Amino acid sequence: MPRLTTKKKILAAALKLFNGKNTQAATTNHIAAALGMSSGNLHYHFKNREAIVFALYEQMLSKTMLEHIDFPVTITQMHEHQLYLAKIYWEYRFFNRELLFLLSRDPELKARYIKENIGHKRHIRIVFEQLAANGYLDIPEDHVYTQLVDTVLLCNQFWHSHLETLGSEVDEANLAGGFGHIEEAMRPYLTAKALDELGTIKI
Amino acid sequence: MPRLTTKKKILAAALKLFNGKNTQAATTNHIAAALGMSSGNLHYHFKNREAIVFALYEQMLSKTMLEHIDFPVTITQMHEHQLYLAKIYWEYRFFNRELLFLLSRDPELKARYIKENIGHKRHIRIVFEQLAANGYLDIPEDHVYTQLVDTVLLCNQFWHSHLETLGSEVDEANLAGGFGHIEEAMRPYLTAKALDELGTIKI
Repeated sequence: MPRLTTKKKILAAALKLFNGKNTQAATTNHIAAALGMSSGNLHYHFKNREAIVFALYEQMLSKTMLEHIDFPVTITQMHEHQLYLAKIYWEYRFFNRELLFLLSRDPELKARYIKENIGHKRHIRIVFEQLAANGYLDIPEDHVYTQLVDTVLLCNQFWHSHLETLGSEVDEANLAGGFGHIEEAMRPYLTAKALDELGTIKI
Repeated sequence: MPRLTTKKKILAAALKLFNGKNTQAATTNHIAAALGMSSGNLHYHFKNREAIVFALYEQMLSKTMLEHIDFPVTITQMHEHQLYLAKIYWEYRFFNRELLFLLSRDPELKARYIKENIGHKRHIRIVFEQLAANGYLDIPEDHVYTQLVDTVLLCNQFWHSHLETLGSEVDEANLAGGFGHIEEAMRPYLTAKALDELGTIKI
């Protein structure tokens, strides 16, 4: 097994603590203590908690950005992509749980997040356009693309918050419900080819 | 013109400050100063900022809860209800802008909000069922209700956040876009009767 670098060890320990309670309750001292490391050593690698949050965001991004992974081009690939994303969002669940708060604490993170999110929005539209071009979606009017893209953005980012505001337990299965919502939003526009291909998948 | 009670004056001044910048930047001292009032006098009416936030939430609730206003029973009434809500959400925009943060600061507010939100979810479903019973919606399967209800909850609560994460300006018109999203989500299920009635309305 490859040895984790100290940086990666710190990020893994921070991720665990952030996911467990809110990020403000997990100080850099707590993170250092969890690793049996001095605070000085931790601060040598990350100047503060914001820098750790930023690095974890970049980690999550590298796993989810459509630039870094293949665009889904069939309805089956789209479904598998959703299942994959559900796992990553669960792995980094502190981030969407505290999204707006974290952005408000770090202008640099906010600027970067918005830039990536605008790019992400463009990519999601391309995915839907490709699914339509490949005969999986029958999109009657252009604004339906806007509708579907906004649905994906709302669910990816705020399904966690949606569960919280209803007092629902935020576990992996409930979080994946956001992807069910996206697939339901697509349903009126699925073609016979898509329904046929999805026949064996529980959508 | 009726004289505002001191309590109402405080709430009006706080609302203006909260909407202008984030709630944490507007202290009770700032609110008192805006009214030319001593902090002592303000604290006689509200023990802290959380109490003011809570009272403003209750004000907003009294204007939006379907228990307090008539349920829309035609597609035109539904559309008018959305326009009305858009105005209220703009009036109290600090609340949805900082929703999750505010709930995390005050367990009492969080408990009350969740309770009301669960009730609200039930009422939204009743509205859709009535629209279907009145011939405006053709709902093919029961889970479409769940889909539409979740769409309303997502848009009502998180459209503001959605705009922020795209770096879009949060003004009254953009905020009302959330209601456009809801109406688009309903579109595949609108009956000929609904489309006919909506003919003269820009949906």
